[in-house]
Amino acid sequence: MTTIRDLETPALLVDLDRLEANLARTADYCAEHGLRLRPHAKTHKTPDIGRMQLDRGAAGLTVAKVGEAEVMAASGAPDMLVAYPVLGESKWRRLLEVAQRTALTVALDNAPAARGLSRHAAAGGVAIGILVEADVGMGRCGLAPGGGLVDLAREIAGMPGLRLDGLMFYPGHVNLAAPGGEAAFEKIGRDLERIYDDFRRAGLPLNTVSGGSTPTLFHSHRLPGLTEIRPGTYVFNDCMQVAMGACEWAQCAASVMTTVVSTPREGAAIVDGGSKTFSSDPARPAGSGLYGRVTDDPAAGFYKMSEEHGFLDVREAETKIRIGDRLRIIPNHICTAVNMHENIYGVRGEAVEKVWKVEGRGKLQ
Amino acid sequence: MTTIRDLETPALLVDLDRLEANLARTADYCAEHGLRLRPHAKTHKTPDIGRMQLDRGAAGLTVAKVGEAEVMAASGAPDMLVAYPVLGESKWRRLLEVAQRTALTVALDNAPAARGLSRHAAAGGVAIGILVEADVGMGRCGLAPGGGLVDLAREIAGMPGLRLDGLMFYPGHVNLAAPGGEAAFEKIGRDLERIYDDFRRAGLPLNTVSGGSTPTLFHSHRLPGLTEIRPGTYVFNDCMQVAMGACEWAQCAASVMTTVVSTPREGAAIVDGGSKTFSSDPARPAGSGLYGRVTDDPAAGFYKMSEEHGFLDVREAETKIRIGDRLRIIPNHICTAVNMHENIYGVRGEAVEKVWKVEGRGKLQ
Repeated sequence: MTTIRDLETPALLVDLDRLEANLARTADYCAEHGLRLRPHAKTHKTPDIGRMQLDRGAAGLTVAKVGEAEVMAASGAPDMLVAYPVLGESKWRRLLEVAQRTALTVALDNAPAARGLSRHAAAGGVAIGILVEADVGMGRCGLAPGGGLVDLAREIAGMPGLRLDGLMFYPGHVNLAAPGGEAAFEKIGRDLERIYDDFRRAGLPLNTVSGGSTPTLFHSHRLPGLTEIRPGTYVFNDCMQVAMGACEWAQCAASVMTTVVSTPREGAAIVDGGSKTFSSDPARPAGSGLYGRVTDDPAAGFYKMSEEHGFLDVREAETKIRIGDRLRIIPNHICTAVNMHENIYGVRGEAVEKVWKVEGRGKLQ
Repeated sequence: MTTIRDLETPALLVDLDRLEANLARTADYCAEHGLRLRPHAKTHKTPDIGRMQLDRGAAGLTVAKVGEAEVMAASGAPDMLVAYPVLGESKWRRLLEVAQRTALTVALDNAPAARGLSRHAAAGGVAIGILVEADVGMGRCGLAPGGGLVDLAREIAGMPGLRLDGLMFYPGHVNLAAPGGEAAFEKIGRDLERIYDDFRRAGLPLNTVSGGSTPTLFHSHRLPGLTEIRPGTYVFNDCMQVAMGACEWAQCAASVMTTVVSTPREGAAIVDGGSKTFSSDPARPAGSGLYGRVTDDPAAGFYKMSEEHGFLDVREAETKIRIGDRLRIIPNHICTAVNMHENIYGVRGEAVEKVWKVEGRGKLQ
């Protein structure tokens, strides 16, 4: 039996008990509130973990890139949402190929992206579902509630090869643990009601209203009219989710096992992982100021990183940290950290039960 | 002929004229000052680019990880420096295999790392060169000048299978464009003189004194006693190097070609690259506050990113930015950006002359 002692570091470990508990908790929540679960696979980029989500209550998967859709098709997902305004002939062609294998929906916010898809879908004899993306405060993609959003939906409703299904939004700006978070969340409800009114008046369908993110996951039922949610990070969780009150430390399933490679000065230890292992995402929105949590000794502060070095301040550490020690560290942002690794090791205690290749890593196009 | 118009985005482009000029300029500088050039391959992680460096004046290559050493061996490097205190039985075994194919040197700052290597090298019948790492102000790995450093060097000099070659340091803390930068650089000179005195008194060799980084590259001759330098970033350059005065914009060889996928609001454009395309390294030490420079319209500010979205503020843009436009963006930090990509496209004008796989990407162990 392989154990974590046999692994070289840095190695990305996923505690399978915690992963399964996170999947069950979310599936139970969705079942209780009648919400469809279409989790975002960007967090794990691994078909087998997508399969686990599908086996535990997910109705389909969400992805951000055409390349991710191609990779995640191996999960056997009966339904895939590409939550991105895909542009370009060759990408539309590749999406058509995905649509010929599995039900496909694309979320977008502009007519050029819709027209290209329409042309390919019509020529290929498939129907691609479309969600128009609304901006309810994130300020990223999506049109603000109002006439422009309705006009786009109406235009799409008339395009061959496309089937307008409804609406998507992403509440990524909401941090319910911060001042103003609750107000921002409540505003989403009002924005949605306004859009629903507009759509109904225009005779446009609202068969799907797709919301959801991990920080607001268990508040989704408080938003009117949602039919599905698309959380991603909930499978593993991370320091950011703890900082936003979305989970407890004991619900963080993923950590990077590192080795102390140097103790060059009193109070200092260097581990063999930096920004190319954890990503350099800071602890935001309101976090520790650190680059991760050392689970084996949380009093050791991961205060700085370069590409292959993690700098620990161990002056307050509970244990005597020595060269060769292995320390597990929960990343600030697990989605960008997973993206650095070739493999995910699924562990129970010290036993390595699974070795998953991160197949979707680097599928940027 | 493939042109950049045929590429899907985001795509990492390298201007071959600029790359070649950067290689020539650095090789000329090293030749002029009698410095050996052993560039750090972490920036490109691509054997063919390592080969180009070797063909243009480099005497060997530097890497940070055992996996990178294995990959970069394909460059045909006659000499490889692993600038990292490698720890662990299986890694020492792998390093021995590298040493059986090519001359190998390892830089380290502690006895456990040296002892493990010594045991494997002696058993395998090879001699591995060792540089002891000194800390001259970076506060990362390396021992401060003084007795501890000399004691470590003396201990290593007596270990079987190892050949003490001298000293390594990394001046990564020096920003000559910032207040205090010149003083920090001059202090390195004094630290080195002190170490040289200590080594000479102890009868320890200084055949190699390995310094150098891209920001201080063309100042290396001002430090006493250097025999070689290990710049990495100089092949491509990036926004950080411009901010530190190490290069001009016209010497930045690498950019990410993105597509504008949405213009959801007045003054806003979204491109199809975020932290999984550029990395989330901020503009440091003293930069623009942005995530990159839009070369096609530098007045467009790349002010925010999520994983697959780049947020541009185009209110001051010179051109009318439309959905479908392609914009090239120089990353803040090219080393972590390259690490996100499967391929590097070598271009001259619009022609794609080379497609290089980033073979060392993800070789974290």
